Amino acid sequence: MKEINLDLRNLDEVFPDNFSEEQIASAKTLFLKNLAQQAHKFYGGKIQTAPKAGIYGFNWFNVWYTPGVSKISTSIRDNNEFSFELSNRGNTVGVVSDSTRVLGDGDVTPPGGLGVMEGKAFLMKYLGGIDAFPLCIDSKNSLGENDPDQIIQFVKQCQHSFGAINLEDISQPNCYKVLDTLRNECDIPVWHDDAQGTACVILAGLINALKLAELKIYDAKIILFGAGAANSTMARFLIQYGADPKNIILFDNKGALHRERQDYENDPRFYLQWDLCQNTNPEMVTDIEDAFTRANVLIALSAPGPHTIKPEWIQLMDKKPIVFTCANPIPEIYPYAAKKAGAFITATGRGDFPNQANNSLGFPGILKGALIVRARKITDNMAIRAAESLANYAEKKGLTQDYIIPAMDEFDIFPEEAADVAMQAIKDGVARIILSRDEVYAIAKRDIEYSRKLTEKMQHEGFINKPNQEILNKALKQAIEAVK
Amino acid sequence: MKEINLDLRNLDEVFPDNFSEEQIASAKTLFLKNLAQQAHKFYGGKIQTAPKAGIYGFNWFNVWYTPGVSKISTSIRDNNEFSFELSNRGNTVGVVSDSTRVLGDGDVTPPGGLGVMEGKAFLMKYLGGIDAFPLCIDSKNSLGENDPDQIIQFVKQCQHSFGAINLEDISQPNCYKVLDTLRNECDIPVWHDDAQGTACVILAGLINALKLAELKIYDAKIILFGAGAANSTMARFLIQYGADPKNIILFDNKGALHRERQDYENDPRFYLQWDLCQNTNPEMVTDIEDAFTRANVLIALSAPGPHTIKPEWIQLMDKKPIVFTCANPIPEIYPYAAKKAGAFITATGRGDFPNQANNSLGFPGILKGALIVRARKITDNMAIRAAESLANYAEKKGLTQDYIIPAMDEFDIFPEEAADVAMQAIKDGVARIILSRDEVYAIAKRDIEYSRKLTEKMQHEGFINKPNQEILNKALKQAIEAVK
Repeated sequence: MKEINLDLRNLDEVFPDNFSEEQIASAKTLFLKNLAQQAHKFYGGKIQTAPKAGIYGFNWFNVWYTPGVSKISTSIRDNNEFSFELSNRGNTVGVVSDSTRVLGDGDVTPPGGLGVMEGKAFLMKYLGGIDAFPLCIDSKNSLGENDPDQIIQFVKQCQHSFGAINLEDISQPNCYKVLDTLRNECDIPVWHDDAQGTACVILAGLINALKLAELKIYDAKIILFGAGAANSTMARFLIQYGADPKNIILFDNKGALHRERQDYENDPRFYLQWDLCQNTNPEMVTDIEDAFTRANVLIALSAPGPHTIKPEWIQLMDKKPIVFTCANPIPEIYPYAAKKAGAFITATGRGDFPNQANNSLGFPGILKGALIVRARKITDNMAIRAAESLANYAEKKGLTQDYIIPAMDEFDIFPEEAADVAMQAIKDGVARIILSRDEVYAIAKRDIEYSRKLTEKMQHEGFINKPNQEILNKALKQAIEAVK
Repeated sequence: MKEINLDLRNLDEVFPDNFSEEQIASAKTLFLKNLAQQAHKFYGGKIQTAPKAGIYGFNWFNVWYTPGVSKISTSIRDNNEFSFELSNRGNTVGVVSDSTRVLGDGDVTPPGGLGVMEGKAFLMKYLGGIDAFPLCIDSKNSLGENDPDQIIQFVKQCQHSFGAINLEDISQPNCYKVLDTLRNECDIPVWHDDAQGTACVILAGLINALKLAELKIYDAKIILFGAGAANSTMARFLIQYGADPKNIILFDNKGALHRERQDYENDPRFYLQWDLCQNTNPEMVTDIEDAFTRANVLIALSAPGPHTIKPEWIQLMDKKPIVFTCANPIPEIYPYAAKKAGAFITATGRGDFPNQANNSLGFPGILKGALIVRARKITDNMAIRAAESLANYAEKKGLTQDYIIPAMDEFDIFPEEAADVAMQAIKDGVARIILSRDEVYAIAKRDIEYSRKLTEKMQHEGFINKPNQEILNKALKQAIEAVK
C-alpha cells in the first residue's frame, strides 16, 4: 500500500491500480470520512476560544473583570451600539442549526450537527477572519414537532450577543419562515447559507458562463431542477439580476411548478414556491423534455446523481448549454457525461471537477463585509453584489470554460468580496457605520491574514499538533478494504 | 504626574501624595473603569475563536467539512455521547445571562452584560483551560417581563452544544427557578456562579477560619447577612457541611428570617427563603443585636458598605469572631474597622485586603473537573468538595489569620480542585466517564498550561499587541482629575 502524505496531495495516487474510477471515488470519500472520525477524535473538535486582549500583570484582571468592566456594562446599557466595539460582538457570528437537514445526512438529532457547524466556524475564521460559534439547538415544541417558531424565538433571544447569524441545515419548509421572519425582525444580518449562500455562488458562476456563451441573462431560458431552499432563492436572485420570469421553469419531485400546483397553493408553509408557481412558467410546461428543449441553462440543486439528469435531456438544450449540477456528494450528472451530451460549461459542488460552486467562496466574505460596517441586514442586493464580485475576480484572471469562478484557494477574493458587499450595504442604507471601500478592504485583509498567520503559528509552535501518520494509514487501509 | 506601568503594579503609588485613603480608593476604581473603557475599545473585546485542528493542505477542508465531516454527524446521531469527544463540546461552557443584575450595575439591557460575560469566558480560558462563550439573552416574555421560563427554554434548547452551562447575573427571584429547574432537567451541569460559586469559595475560607479559631462547625453560631442567591445557597452548604440549622440566622432587608415571615410564605418564587425560614432561627430572634450576641461567624453578602455592618455589632460577638463581608465593590464593613471591633479573621471580595473570597478560585476548577469526567450535574457534594480542596491547599501552605484561602495567583490550585471535584462526581454517580485522580489532574494541568502558554505566545508574537502607554496615562489623568 502506498502511503498517504499528511498534506493529502497524493490522495489520487494511493489507491490500488486495479481500482475503477468509481471505486476510487468511493474509496476517496470513505477515506475522508474515516480520517475525519480519527482526526476529530485526535483533536477533540476543531475550534477553541483564545484571548484577544492582553494580561500584563495580575491587576489586569481588575480591568477585564470587576471593577473595571462595570464601565463596559453601563456604556453598553446607555447605548447598545457600543456593544459592537467594546466587546467581540462586532466580529462574532452565531452558526445556528436545528440539525434536521445536515448536509447529506438529514436529521441527525440536535448534537449531531456539531461537526458541521464547528466546521463552518473553522472556515469562517480561516477564510473570513470571523469568530463564529456553533449553536446546535433542539427545535421541537411540546408536541414533539420541529417548529420554526422555536428557532425564531431562540435567535431573537440571543441576537444581542452576535454581529450576525448564519442559519444552517434547517429542514424545509421550516427554514423559509425562520429566515424570512428573522431577516425582518432582527437588527443584525441573518443569513441562510443553504439558500442565499448557494444561490449567490452559483449566480457568480452563471454570470461568467453567460459571458462565455455570449448570452444575455434576459434572453436565457433557465431550468431550475429542484425547488427547495437553494433553488427558490436562486429564482429570486435570477429575476432580480435580470432574468425574465417567463423564461424560468422550476421542477420538483412532483413535476414542474406552475399556477395550477394546488399542493403549493394549499400549503402556506411553502409560500416561496407558490409565489414562483404564479410568476414563472406561464405556458405551464409540464413535460421535462419540452422544458429542456432549447433551454440555455440548467441549475440542478436536487437529489444526488449521477443519473438524476439524463444525457438525452441535455442533448435537447440550445447551443452552448450551461449545466450546473450541484447535488452533494454526487452531482445530478457527472460533468464528463454532461459534456459528452453537449454541455458547453459544467459546474458542480465538488473540488475534484472544474468550476466548483462552493458556498465557502461566499459566506466568509459576505459576512465579513456585513460585520465591518455593522450591517442591520444582508439585502438581496448585497448577495448579488457578492456574486458580481466573485465573477469579476475570476474574469480579471481570465475566463475559460473550466474557470468561471474563483477556486477555493484563491484567498485574495475574500477581502475584495467583503469590501464590495460593505459598499452595497452602505448604498442600501443598512450599514450602521460608513467606511470607504479601501478601509473595509484593509480591515478584512488584516483580519484574514491574522487568522491565517495565527493558525500557522499555532501549528508551528505545537499548539496544534500534527496527527500521527498511523491515523492516516488506518483511515486509508479501511477505505481500501471496504471498497475492494 | 507619575506614570503608571503597563503591568499596573505601581497602581498604589501613582496618585497625588495629598490624596486621602478614600480618595485613592475612589481614584483607583475610576482608573480601572477608564482603562477598561479604553482597553476594551483598543482590543474590540476579550475573546476570539481560534483553530484547534490543523490545516496541512487544501484537502483537509474535505476532512473538517464535507464530505468527511458526514461521519461525525452520523456518529453523533447514532450515539449522542460521541459529541463530547468528536467536537469541542466536551470542553465548552456557555456563559448565560439575561443581564438583569450585572455585578453592581443591575439591569443593563441584554447586550450590556457582554463585557462581564466575555470577562468570565476570558477567565475560564486563562485559569481553567476551558472554552467558554458569552450568551447574553433577552428574557422578556410577551408581557415585557423578565421571565425565568424564557431562560429555561433557551438553555434547554442549546444544551446539546455545551459541556456545561454557567448562569450569571440573573436577577432574583428568577435565578432560583432557573437554576433549580435546569439542574434537574438538563443532562449537563448547570452552575449558577453567583449562588453556588460564591458559597463554595466562602465555605473554603470558613473551613480554615474555624480551624484557626478552634471551633467545630456544628457548634458555630452563624449569622448570614443578606438572604439572596448567594447566602441562601451558603445556608444550604453550611447545613450539608455540618452546621446546625438551629444556630443559623439569616437577615434580609426586612429583618430576620423565621417561620412567621408571611412575605416569603406567600410568594412561591422565594421558595428557597421560605424553606430557610422554617428550618433556621427556631427561637425567632428578630433583633440584630440579639443575633450578634455571642455569634461566632458573620457572612455578609448584602449591600455595599462601608457602614452596612456596625462595629458595635461585631463587638457583641463571641471570642475570635470570623467576619466575612463580601459585598462589592465596598465590603459591608472595612476589614480594619472590623478588626478594631474585635474581629479575629476578616475576609472580603477584594484583592487589596487579605483573604479574598473570589469566585475565580472556584468556577474554573470546578467546571474543569466536571467537564473532564463529562458530569451530568454538579452536585452540592462536588461544590463542597471544591471548598475542601481550596481549604486543604491553603492549609498545606500554612494558615494564618491573613491566609485562610489561596490567593488568585496561586494557579496550581485549579488542577487540584478539578481532580477533587471529578472524583466526587464519580462517587456521586454523575460522571459519564471514570478516570483516576491522577488522570484528571494531568488533563487539567495540561489544558491550563496550554491556555497560559498560548496567551503568552500570542502576546509575544504580536497576535495580542500591548495597549499604547497613552491609553494608560489618559485613564489615570481622568481618574485623578475626577477625584481631586
